[in-house]
Amino acid sequence: MKNRPLDFLSPRSIMVVGASANPAKRGYNAIARLLSDGFDGPIYPINPQLTELRGLTCYASIAEVPEAVDLALICTPASTVPEIIEQCGAAGIQGAIVLATGFSESGPAGERLEQAAVEAARRSGVRLVGPNTSGMFNTARQCNLVGFQDLRQGSVGILSQSGNMALSMITESRRHPTLGFSTYIGVGNEAEIALHEYLDYFAHDSDTRVVATYIEGVRQGEAFLQSARALSTRKPMVLYKSGRTPSGQSAARSHTGALAGDITLCRGLMRQAGVILVERSDHLLPVAESLATQPSARGYRVAVLADGGGHATITADEMSDRGLQLAELEPATRERLRGLLGPQAPVDNPVDFAGASDTEPGLFADCSELLLADPGVDGLLVVGLFGGYQLRFSTTLADVEEQAAQTLCRLQKQYGKPLVLHSLYKHHNTEALQRLEAGGIPVQDSLEVAVHCMAALCQYGEVQQRPSPAPNLRREALTPLKAAAEMLDAVIAEQLRVVTEDKGRALLKLYGIDTGETCLIQDETALRAAARDFGERALAMKVVSPQVVHKSDAGGVALNLRGEKALLQAFQRIIDSSRRYRNDARIDGVLLTPMAPAGGVEVILGITRDPQFGPVIMFGLGGIHVEVLRDVSFRALPLDAADAATMLTEIRAHRILEGVRGQPPVDHDALIELMLSLSRLLQAHPQIAELELNPVMLYQSGLEILDVRILLTEKPIR
Amino acid sequence: MKNRPLDFLSPRSIMVVGASANPAKRGYNAIARLLSDGFDGPIYPINPQLTELRGLTCYASIAEVPEAVDLALICTPASTVPEIIEQCGAAGIQGAIVLATGFSESGPAGERLEQAAVEAARRSGVRLVGPNTSGMFNTARQCNLVGFQDLRQGSVGILSQSGNMALSMITESRRHPTLGFSTYIGVGNEAEIALHEYLDYFAHDSDTRVVATYIEGVRQGEAFLQSARALSTRKPMVLYKSGRTPSGQSAARSHTGALAGDITLCRGLMRQAGVILVERSDHLLPVAESLATQPSARGYRVAVLADGGGHATITADEMSDRGLQLAELEPATRERLRGLLGPQAPVDNPVDFAGASDTEPGLFADCSELLLADPGVDGLLVVGLFGGYQLRFSTTLADVEEQAAQTLCRLQKQYGKPLVLHSLYKHHNTEALQRLEAGGIPVQDSLEVAVHCMAALCQYGEVQQRPSPAPNLRREALTPLKAAAEMLDAVIAEQLRVVTEDKGRALLKLYGIDTGETCLIQDETALRAAARDFGERALAMKVVSPQVVHKSDAGGVALNLRGEKALLQAFQRIIDSSRRYRNDARIDGVLLTPMAPAGGVEVILGITRDPQFGPVIMFGLGGIHVEVLRDVSFRALPLDAADAATMLTEIRAHRILEGVRGQPPVDHDALIELMLSLSRLLQAHPQIAELELNPVMLYQSGLEILDVRILLTEKPIR
Repeated sequence: MKNRPLDFLSPRSIMVVGASANPAKRGYNAIARLLSDGFDGPIYPINPQLTELRGLTCYASIAEVPEAVDLALICTPASTVPEIIEQCGAAGIQGAIVLATGFSESGPAGERLEQAAVEAARRSGVRLVGPNTSGMFNTARQCNLVGFQDLRQGSVGILSQSGNMALSMITESRRHPTLGFSTYIGVGNEAEIALHEYLDYFAHDSDTRVVATYIEGVRQGEAFLQSARALSTRKPMVLYKSGRTPSGQSAARSHTGALAGDITLCRGLMRQAGVILVERSDHLLPVAESLATQPSARGYRVAVLADGGGHATITADEMSDRGLQLAELEPATRERLRGLLGPQAPVDNPVDFAGASDTEPGLFADCSELLLADPGVDGLLVVGLFGGYQLRFSTTLADVEEQAAQTLCRLQKQYGKPLVLHSLYKHHNTEALQRLEAGGIPVQDSLEVAVHCMAALCQYGEVQQRPSPAPNLRREALTPLKAAAEMLDAVIAEQLRVVTEDKGRALLKLYGIDTGETCLIQDETALRAAARDFGERALAMKVVSPQVVHKSDAGGVALNLRGEKALLQAFQRIIDSSRRYRNDARIDGVLLTPMAPAGGVEVILGITRDPQFGPVIMFGLGGIHVEVLRDVSFRALPLDAADAATMLTEIRAHRILEGVRGQPPVDHDALIELMLSLSRLLQAHPQIAELELNPVMLYQSGLEILDVRILLTEKPIR
Repeated sequence: MKNRPLDFLSPRSIMVVGASANPAKRGYNAIARLLSDGFDGPIYPINPQLTELRGLTCYASIAEVPEAVDLALICTPASTVPEIIEQCGAAGIQGAIVLATGFSESGPAGERLEQAAVEAARRSGVRLVGPNTSGMFNTARQCNLVGFQDLRQGSVGILSQSGNMALSMITESRRHPTLGFSTYIGVGNEAEIALHEYLDYFAHDSDTRVVATYIEGVRQGEAFLQSARALSTRKPMVLYKSGRTPSGQSAARSHTGALAGDITLCRGLMRQAGVILVERSDHLLPVAESLATQPSARGYRVAVLADGGGHATITADEMSDRGLQLAELEPATRERLRGLLGPQAPVDNPVDFAGASDTEPGLFADCSELLLADPGVDGLLVVGLFGGYQLRFSTTLADVEEQAAQTLCRLQKQYGKPLVLHSLYKHHNTEALQRLEAGGIPVQDSLEVAVHCMAALCQYGEVQQRPSPAPNLRREALTPLKAAAEMLDAVIAEQLRVVTEDKGRALLKLYGIDTGETCLIQDETALRAAARDFGERALAMKVVSPQVVHKSDAGGVALNLRGEKALLQAFQRIIDSSRRYRNDARIDGVLLTPMAPAGGVEVILGITRDPQFGPVIMFGLGGIHVEVLRDVSFRALPLDAADAATMLTEIRAHRILEGVRGQPPVDHDALIELMLSLSRLLQAHPQIAELELNPVMLYQSGLEILDVRILLTEKPIR
């Protein structure tokens, strides 16, 4: 059965279960606020002790309410909840918000209660927000069921795993003169409705232009990524993800019980999904506001208008850190700037007035027009004192600043490029700054925040320009090849989880991955024949046994072998020491492979099933780069070619792939093709829990896979 | 001649050269402000056209002023400045502030004018602030010569290479209810007074408790580091350094013409000097304020008090990023917390009220007392809604919050540990929050900023606990060893800059550095003898020639040589190909060294003379770690053992030194000893421009230096 959509989050009628006459109670406050805000629909308080509350008729039970209500706010204690939900279902209520604590966050008894509530909801078709939630609001419906004060209607939606982070945003919003909110949902324990369903709701909520999300951990990660990707194609989703460090993770665990993952993984997956990730909680709101008010940029080339070298320098520093480029101005633009600023003015980007605007803040408008008109400029950052020249220098400048502000708003719309403005004087809220805000140009009081807002507008521009996902990105299982399926089934039939390297290589070959010349040798006769075939080439020999996973530790590897004699000796040694290492090991033989040519770049490709996000692929350079430096890039599977190409640029050491110390660049195409093949293989065989190619040697042309490790899931999937 | 100290920055009498009756001019404004602020001393306007200005007698010339004035503010155009300074000198004026632009920042003509001004100043003993400066203020003297409005007296000093960054701080300070400033100095072009002299001034200015500095580049870096270190032992110095990225650097260059260096180098050197570096401009002021108001911490173990998991998790994440630890609470503390919060409460750090404080914000005071009393807690971070429960929940809580605020102030002083408070409601400025600020506890509105403030308090605690610099840190040149000096003199006498490896190794040996068994071979007879001595050991052979610096490129290196025959062949090959590579090369022979044992960790030690900061030492892992990943650590010379040890922990890949993949740790002591020896060597021989040991192989016991490169300065120093 497909879940009922979450339309009840825009309710036309509300029931408050556990309504109260005590002003300290949520069951009173919610009703009082609905009334004072002018909620435009019937409100039904439920309380058998009362007949009337704030002029509303009180009902003794849910069943007595005369109509099928959209939304029930349940304010009663945890123990009553499953029964109440049953009653809600019987009364045809679409959704319920459960405020009570005492559920899964509190221990085993609470967990059982939560399970009972979920079962009741599923049985009766009631969708359930929470429990253990601060509530929700929908400003367009005048429906504030969380009790936040000072709420302004607007276009920013909030989805949060923490009520106090939402409160932080609402409180902070009072310092943004025009910023308002559409809908907030506190997800609480996410017992019945999963996070991604809320994303789907926001994707289709016409009141919401951007979604600000605070998340500590995700349970149904694959669905989350799909919904995030779908949402991001319609409107920007901004995410602050906490629990990104070991300390933070333990704090997060005790909070939601959700698993919180590595920030590197999160960065890769969110970029893939088109989500704008912010790594400071105090950037979440300004970035969301900018995305709600400004168009995205078509590229990363930004012009900066500053009054004074200090601000210009800091801005340039910060832009570089955030991946923005200082736009190269056209000669004609420079010429015109010189016309405005005088023949001596250095008209490089950043454009620095160096005091020229002290008496003439109108220069901001004039120069902005030139910069916005330049085809090499994707966005404009104005930093410094604008809006405050009237305070710093002379009140007579107020008019000029107001006029310039109005012009800036017009120019921004005319050129359709984003304009982000920083002003020291934001908090003085002069008329000029008010006009900017009113005209849809938010004012930032921090240079770093302003640059981050511009970076987000550029990132979202890139998201919007992405082609639709390639067909292979449909998250359907690919049909497995019959031979491959049979091979894995045979391993499983033997109660084994390890796929030995010979079989692993055969599996890769079935999916078109070249694993070079290898042969499995089981006796000396075969070895002699192989020795003849390989001639004088240097060979590697490795034990093949499902029980010997760490082959080197077992003395199960010999390298650089040449000629029959060396091969025979190594064979004997490897078999002997592998038996000594584990005397119950089933030894299938040894695998013979030619040594890889020298001079390659060593990389690792690994696929694992992340507990939050499902199958993910990791790429990194070999050796300590992964183990010690954690210099890796992640994407969720399935992977497309653009994602794979981006992964190669994301590691810190990416220059090595381009060739350093006189080396040629490695074969990027071969590597990307390998990554895509692995992605297809994994999609076809959900039994594979882990797959690691470590190392893969990359050359100027082609690559060589030196080791293949495949582990199957403990329990067969599906 | 020792420079006159900068006492004129606290002037008792002021002269304004270029006084004006035009309210749009600095020559009017400065006087008006001195009068309105109640400057407590004589003010002498100079203008031959006026006899009186704002009730003050005007003088036609400097010579006519009846007393020797402390400070002259020069508001006249650039061209007049050298002559005016001469006159100031003749009149016995201590210092002058030159506001005019049109000096070195504007091109060659301005540079000459600046030179003339400096010469006039030096001749006449006048110290010179600027030119091209926004001015200065000294609030204790009611002397505001920069015209910033809304100035509050207080204990934060500002030293800035950018006037608008100072303006940013002053403007921002209005949102900090009790934050005030002592002295601001805009250094302008730093034509006569160098940056470090201002640091010395602040070190002894009793009105200043912390110095906030904005710097783009440093010219006299060694003196700067010395002064910064001296200042940091007396009071905290907080630095925001811009121009840290290539883009930022080009913006900085056009601004001050100063060289701006690599941020990695800056981080290392500032840590060494005890300077608190902030890497966001919007953190400079809050961090300075915290250091001005709170005691430093004795360690990095921080307790967190939060109301709600969201804030707790973000705080823990951010703490981990900033190197803070979540303090492990004592069992007794946990027991008492449980007594306050109920038997079910999880009393881990972060302590999360999870709503318990909604009706009882007094819990903040009670729990803070327990946490501050815990000997395992070095500092306390209180985050969330404190001060706003009265707004969020009930106005009846206002009294409780005010009382709790007062208690927090008392507890903080009683326990002498730092307390940093974050509140969503900072901008509501409730009575409770006002009491905190009045009691010396600044309130932050960003979790990230709050954590950074605490981190700075911990860092400064570490600075204060450092022992006084070891004797070898006195920046005197060490007496060079006679044999070493003679060797280098001989190289210089030959008009050479390259010290060949044989001599380089000999030089290291003289300073007690073991460079292993090596011998310089000049003919086949000597080579045969050496072959006998070394026996069957594998040897490396390298050409020795002052003209062949890139030995491998010249075919001048052979490795893994064993036995006489191989050595003779290699010798011939190396000599031949070196000659082919450069036929004018003087070939001194070849250097024979035993091959280093396998299994070591490859590192690089390099010493160079940084254009800003003088001689610095760099440490990094070998190969791509330095070249591609830039994973290095820097310190200025001379180095002490503690600095050297810290360098080893500062690289990202530091775990490799501890032993990964089953390897033992490397010999840290041997490496540190080597670094200190290099430091001594460089101090003794200022002729050395660069010295690189690349690679050095580190083993579990000892190390081996595989290559030595020494380059002398182009011109002999001193």
